[in-house]
Amino acid sequence: MFIVGERINTTRKSMDQAVKERNTEMIQEEAIRQVQAGANTLDVNCGSLKAEEEPEALTWLVKTVQSVTALPLCLDSPNPEALAAGLAVHQGKPMINSISGERSRYTQVLTLIKEYHASVVALCMDDRGIPQGKSQALEVGIRLVEELLTDGISLDDIYFDPLVRSLATSPGSVLETLELMQDLKARFPGLHFISGLSNVSFGLPERRHLNRAFVVLSVASGLDAVIMDPLDKDMVALIYAAEALTGRDRFCLKYIEAYRQGRLKA
Amino acid sequence: MFIVGERINTTRKSMDQAVKERNTEMIQEEAIRQVQAGANTLDVNCGSLKAEEEPEALTWLVKTVQSVTALPLCLDSPNPEALAAGLAVHQGKPMINSISGERSRYTQVLTLIKEYHASVVALCMDDRGIPQGKSQALEVGIRLVEELLTDGISLDDIYFDPLVRSLATSPGSVLETLELMQDLKARFPGLHFISGLSNVSFGLPERRHLNRAFVVLSVASGLDAVIMDPLDKDMVALIYAAEALTGRDRFCLKYIEAYRQGRLKA
Repeated sequence: MFIVGERINTTRKSMDQAVKERNTEMIQEEAIRQVQAGANTLDVNCGSLKAEEEPEALTWLVKTVQSVTALPLCLDSPNPEALAAGLAVHQGKPMINSISGERSRYTQVLTLIKEYHASVVALCMDDRGIPQGKSQALEVGIRLVEELLTDGISLDDIYFDPLVRSLATSPGSVLETLELMQDLKARFPGLHFISGLSNVSFGLPERRHLNRAFVVLSVASGLDAVIMDPLDKDMVALIYAAEALTGRDRFCLKYIEAYRQGRLKA
Repeated sequence: MFIVGERINTTRKSMDQAVKERNTEMIQEEAIRQVQAGANTLDVNCGSLKAEEEPEALTWLVKTVQSVTALPLCLDSPNPEALAAGLAVHQGKPMINSISGERSRYTQVLTLIKEYHASVVALCMDDRGIPQGKSQALEVGIRLVEELLTDGISLDDIYFDPLVRSLATSPGSVLETLELMQDLKARFPGLHFISGLSNVSFGLPERRHLNRAFVVLSVASGLDAVIMDPLDKDMVALIYAAEALTGRDRFCLKYIEAYRQGRLKA
């Protein structure tokens, strides 16, 4: 499982304050904790700032985080100017979060992916918004992946996010999301699938149980990347367990190695 | 989900002692705790006792437990004499754990099922032992279910246990077990599926993660009954969550009801 650490995000109050105050120590501490917990890349998001402040803030975030870790980062913004500014100072192969089938976003972000040889999170949506129902989602997904391939992006650099909806407001949509991944996986072997783990439980109580069940079902349907809090050891351990049960961890070697590193115990 | 509470079992040291000493209070306390936690039936098992002591002990267990709960029980023994003795004093519709395709066991337990109009746990095995590989398991399973139906047992009274193996010793068998349930479910709509939740992780560290992932995958494959510790609130909650995500809890009504009853929080 490819883990994108989600903690450096200004939708969290403490991070919002840390970015506004340019609190180097606090940001670096969040970075180091996530790296030590096993994150494969760190998402950096300061999208809650004013649009005109975001490019400079994202640039500062990239530099600040990369001065304490050799990991590449996942630059997370709907704002192409902010992405461009952050990418200009990024070291290594970046990930961009995100592109979609929306025309203006597609064109602007594609240029950046190519310029920086980035991998990219591809959201299952277009100018009509998030697709209604599975057949429309499949159509939007296929078109988006094929367009990226036609435009020269390697399949291995595409992380498709099926955009799971909340179970509370869209009953039935979870099964459709799982089927969407299975169908796209069959059509594009090698395509990566990525998801956040908490949208599914929005509006429901004791959300962790729903998030946990969702990640297990998603792993079984092909999920191979997650945007999550890597400090949530129970969740990380459950992902290792799901991979072992579904034949993606031969002889449980990764599970046992994670155990030996103390990563399965809270 | 139909929850069979597993705590009254003499493989647990405290229960072995309680049964040997005929400690009514201790047994009844275990019964009440499981009922209050939401168990639908309680397994009673004193199979660790000497064979000649088991019939009287099981009879005592049935009476002792049923004097504090109106729930029917699941009488658990490989010994038909013990089952017969316990069934003779049982109130309500009992469950028998278990029958299998083994010839002598099949014949003896079938008589008891019919005499007491019991439901039954049907283990996927025969005189050759536990089947090797999926095609043999499917063959054994189909033959066992068809034989029970032919012998007049209603499909609704059969709880098929696919006998999941340990991931440590049988890699690949977990996926086969899930497929076995799906295949049998397609062939016998209405057949129940039951499983314990801990065999899958035997021999591996931090087993709870594997048990959790297994229950989620099993619910998605049709599991509708479990033999488990109903006091494990995290596991119960995860089962509710898995049912909600897989379309078996319309509008999350059961999940929300369980939350209101305080059953989703440790």
